[in-house]
Amino acid sequence: MAVLITGIGELTTNDPELGRLGEAAMVLEGGAVAWVGPAGQAPEADERVDVGGRAVLPGWVDSHTHLVFAGDRTAEFEARMAGKPYAAGGIAITVEATRAASDEQLAANLGRHLDEAARQGTTCLETKTGYGLTVTDEERSAKLAGPVADEVTYLGAHLVPPGADAESYVDLVCGEMLDAVAPHVRWADVFCETGAFDEAQSARVLTAAAKRGLGLRVHGNQLGEGPGVRLAVEHGAASVDHCTYLTDADVAALASSGTVATLLPACDLSTRQPLAPARRLLDAGATVALASNANPGSSYTTSMAFCVATAVLQMRMTVDEAVWAATAGGARALRRDDVGYLRPGARADVHVLDAPSTTHLAYRPGVPLTQAVWRKGERMR
Amino acid sequence: MAVLITGIGELTTNDPELGRLGEAAMVLEGGAVAWVGPAGQAPEADERVDVGGRAVLPGWVDSHTHLVFAGDRTAEFEARMAGKPYAAGGIAITVEATRAASDEQLAANLGRHLDEAARQGTTCLETKTGYGLTVTDEERSAKLAGPVADEVTYLGAHLVPPGADAESYVDLVCGEMLDAVAPHVRWADVFCETGAFDEAQSARVLTAAAKRGLGLRVHGNQLGEGPGVRLAVEHGAASVDHCTYLTDADVAALASSGTVATLLPACDLSTRQPLAPARRLLDAGATVALASNANPGSSYTTSMAFCVATAVLQMRMTVDEAVWAATAGGARALRRDDVGYLRPGARADVHVLDAPSTTHLAYRPGVPLTQAVWRKGERMR
Ligand SMILES: [Zn+2]
Ligand SMILES: [Zn+2]
Repeated sequence: MAVLITGIGELTTNDPELGRLGEAAMVLEGGAVAWVGPAGQAPEADERVDVGGRAVLPGWVDSHTHLVFAGDRTAEFEARMAGKPYAAGGIAITVEATRAASDEQLAANLGRHLDEAARQGTTCLETKTGYGLTVTDEERSAKLAGPVADEVTYLGAHLVPPGADAESYVDLVCGEMLDAVAPHVRWADVFCETGAFDEAQSARVLTAAAKRGLGLRVHGNQLGEGPGVRLAVEHGAASVDHCTYLTDADVAALASSGTVATLLPACDLSTRQPLAPARRLLDAGATVALASNANPGSSYTTSMAFCVATAVLQMRMTVDEAVWAATAGGARALRRDDVGYLRPGARADVHVLDAPSTTHLAYRPGVPLTQAVWRKGERMR
Repeated sequence: MAVLITGIGELTTNDPELGRLGEAAMVLEGGAVAWVGPAGQAPEADERVDVGGRAVLPGWVDSHTHLVFAGDRTAEFEARMAGKPYAAGGIAITVEATRAASDEQLAANLGRHLDEAARQGTTCLETKTGYGLTVTDEERSAKLAGPVADEVTYLGAHLVPPGADAESYVDLVCGEMLDAVAPHVRWADVFCETGAFDEAQSARVLTAAAKRGLGLRVHGNQLGEGPGVRLAVEHGAASVDHCTYLTDADVAALASSGTVATLLPACDLSTRQPLAPARRLLDAGATVALASNANPGSSYTTSMAFCVATAVLQMRMTVDEAVWAATAGGARALRRDDVGYLRPGARADVHVLDAPSTTHLAYRPGVPLTQAVWRKGERMR
């Protein structure tokens, strides 16, 4: 069945040749975009939806979330905002709750957050393991995420579980745990940071994962300068995420590499870190993506619109740069070109705003602007 | 007809004696709150709504908006974000479009924005004239707002219209225009700022308005330190709004006065100003309100949730301080105590969050959390 979306006031295709169209229309068929062009030249279709002059863009590609989790960290967030110490905080709390949860509980929580994201225009989403940290629990997380997330990443190297020896744990992450999880994921990731995994440990994880045929991602440079970015570039990672603290050498390395710098502004704000230096990266020629980092600890939001608004209002990205980074940029960070674009052949992931232009995403911060969403050609909202 | 709202997981009453209740219920009847208490002790009612453990708080009181307008300033916003000059920007553009619009167009635009605000939990809203700047157009703006906004403010002193002589215009604002508008409004306001009205002109406006029995409000200290705050306190204004740049003397004057400091964080961000010094004000003992300043130029959002999230994440207000400021604080800025509270006798303005606590307003920035809204006992969402 073909669906014609017409009356598009502004169509962001992200395609360099198609560019941005006014008074446009689009046909979705078989889960893909079949046709894009001027409204007056649109072909016939089985169903016709007139969006009344609204802006249409590709669905958000949220390339960084941690949504296989259980438990609650509201009190820890409250303490952080009040500038008070909080004894029992951190990732380990979520690990404990996740291990204790049933498969059904984890799947329900994951599904609830995926639905919430879809209702806000997110049509392609990566999520990670990393709250299991045992062979069984990491494998279980990957298997739960596989059927419902677009991309799944193995993050056994999220932190050294309390009580474990770091080197032995890295052995496990690179050995038995990798063997168990690899069949269920496309990506591997490591949290390369003081207090998590050091450069040598991180390199071991990346090397072992690459040998297993997994694509690479890195959490790096979140809490201070460090080896994360350099390591990501050296290992040909698809993306290095956070990038809050960068040296000039880091920026230069990213600019001359195929590694995307994925910025997580909601996380920076929620942890009272400075916002990542988007302008330096863009001006140097690096590829920038924006993602939510949705997780119950450092960034408990699924709102890509909030990330885009923050990027424009506070990180000096232009609206076009921010919208690209949250769609095609996310796709680049996942090494995909079937999502993040609206052109013939692309996945039919369509986001209609209750606004005449994408500028309103920053011009009207906080106002829920998602009016309609199609994912793989199916109406989600 | 009485409505029982039960299954409230967290009830923010803002009442010092009632405090915050867990496992609570509430009865609405005749547009007012009839009863508040433990769920187990709730009386019978005609209708029963179980909110399933969700958080309930008073509807937002947005004490500062400019929603009687026509026209579009998207391009001006884009230019500002790109750091580019924009020739034909500013309030005068909106004045021109507003004068040119029909009553029907203005009413429709106002109604659309009020509906948008209500869907996001705003149940009491102030709005202003100020895009007319002729006797006829200011009177028309006030008359259009009267039937639909909770509070209407006369802002003939928004700026000196292009081509007019400042002193003669102030004569008009304090004379014929005041006579025409006063019967339709409760408040008068003046934009006391370099480039708008100076101290002597502002004082003339406030004095004339007070003589006509209007309550006073001031736009002050938005773009730099200045006399706005001092003037507001001296004239016993209910509120001075913006307060982005404050001297220690301003903070002290506010702390020892009945004048509320109304902060407009979405405006600060949208104009790339620093965020107002909420912490200094609160620590000194001043009363702080948060409002949207919804207007097409400097702050085109109706999202009070965005203001609350920004206040917590970036202005170091606690969640409780920010939620109070956006409800009871707004009420204080409007010298009302029938809204901003959920206690017997208060207006039945109820906001249900799709979250277990108000903390989620900051913990989950950008996620649309408004699940249900009653205004004057009537279900709005
Ligand atoms: Zn992460
Ligand atoms: Zn204003």
